[in-house]
Amino acid sequence: MDTRWLGILLFDDVEELDAVGPWEVLSWWTANFADDGYRVTTFSVDGAPVRCAKGMTIVPDRAAADIGPLEVLVHPGGRGTRPMLEDAEHLERVRQWRRDVPLMTSVCTGSLVYAAAGLLAGRPATTHHASLDVLGGLDTSVEVRPDDRFVDDGDVVTSSGVSAGIDMALHLVVRLVGPERARQVRRGIQYDPEPPV
Amino acid sequence: MDTRWLGILLFDDVEELDAVGPWEVLSWWTANFADDGYRVTTFSVDGAPVRCAKGMTIVPDRAAADIGPLEVLVHPGGRGTRPMLEDAEHLERVRQWRRDVPLMTSVCTGSLVYAAAGLLAGRPATTHHASLDVLGGLDTSVEVRPDDRFVDDGDVVTSSGVSAGIDMALHLVVRLVGPERARQVRRGIQYDPEPPV
Repeated sequence: MDTRWLGILLFDDVEELDAVGPWEVLSWWTANFADDGYRVTTFSVDGAPVRCAKGMTIVPDRAAADIGPLEVLVHPGGRGTRPMLEDAEHLERVRQWRRDVPLMTSVCTGSLVYAAAGLLAGRPATTHHASLDVLGGLDTSVEVRPDDRFVDDGDVVTSSGVSAGIDMALHLVVRLVGPERARQVRRGIQYDPEPPV
Repeated sequence: MDTRWLGILLFDDVEELDAVGPWEVLSWWTANFADDGYRVTTFSVDGAPVRCAKGMTIVPDRAAADIGPLEVLVHPGGRGTRPMLEDAEHLERVRQWRRDVPLMTSVCTGSLVYAAAGLLAGRPATTHHASLDVLGGLDTSVEVRPDDRFVDDGDVVTSSGVSAGIDMALHLVVRLVGPERARQVRRGIQYDPEPPV
């Protein structure tokens, strides 16, 4: 069976945990269950290292031109999404990914980019709590869901802010393999959250 | 008031979320509340980029020799801690940090390194669920706490596996500023976890 690839987009001013939360879930899964047939990769458009929103520098695995067909794309958020909303080249790139990638997912304000590209027309979706109005403003046909941790609308899954990408990524494991595998991953990263405040 | 620094150690085969979970919490806090007087930095011993346990490459802010006095050190875990347990040079470095740094903290198997360095003698501590026996074996005087998300023993705080670093870092914000600030950070990263399995 051919390897199926999951891709996480990196870009300047991506919020660190938006990308690394799903990365941890998906890479823990694929590293420990290679027989499931999936692998995960990070990429930036030009392949260059990115400086994240809080200042961490991450070196992506490859450039967009060097990734093959993806089964799943994860578009994180962060303040780096703001200029993307008016970046015609990036929005066309997102529309091309939509045509090529069966399952498009976003974390936090990644969904704003999807909305600006027209991917969420007439669909339910969510985003970071502070950007819910922006989401509805970008495309008034979006059914904004303020209370959902993530919204699974079939071939598009959007999540709420930052740390919600961890929950969404576990949901992706449920979809792609099943709940027992997702429980194994959850146990592996000991995701039994107890926020102290 | 002089800036007080929080340092997160990076090393080859560090588990990605062990480091980036606390980074997100602490950097979101310090970036949004600069008047609190804290800043956070990442560093590796030699300042070179590290290849993490699941393959992500992160470029640290600086080398160990280039960081000034730290208020808090975060020692993450990951399989890169295994060789550290018999690395006399690293263990002596950890003991030196213990002498210099008021608050020593660890995520996941970072506490194994602390135990090997003698920092946990006669103290309560925890680690990743799969390494609890190793922790007790490294120093039989450690009071191993299998059920705690993190263990605050005053000048040492240890946490359980991987994602527990997020909870521990929020606890650090409580200790260093107060619960209201930690709630603001929690809200900022929308940390209202809902594991789907």
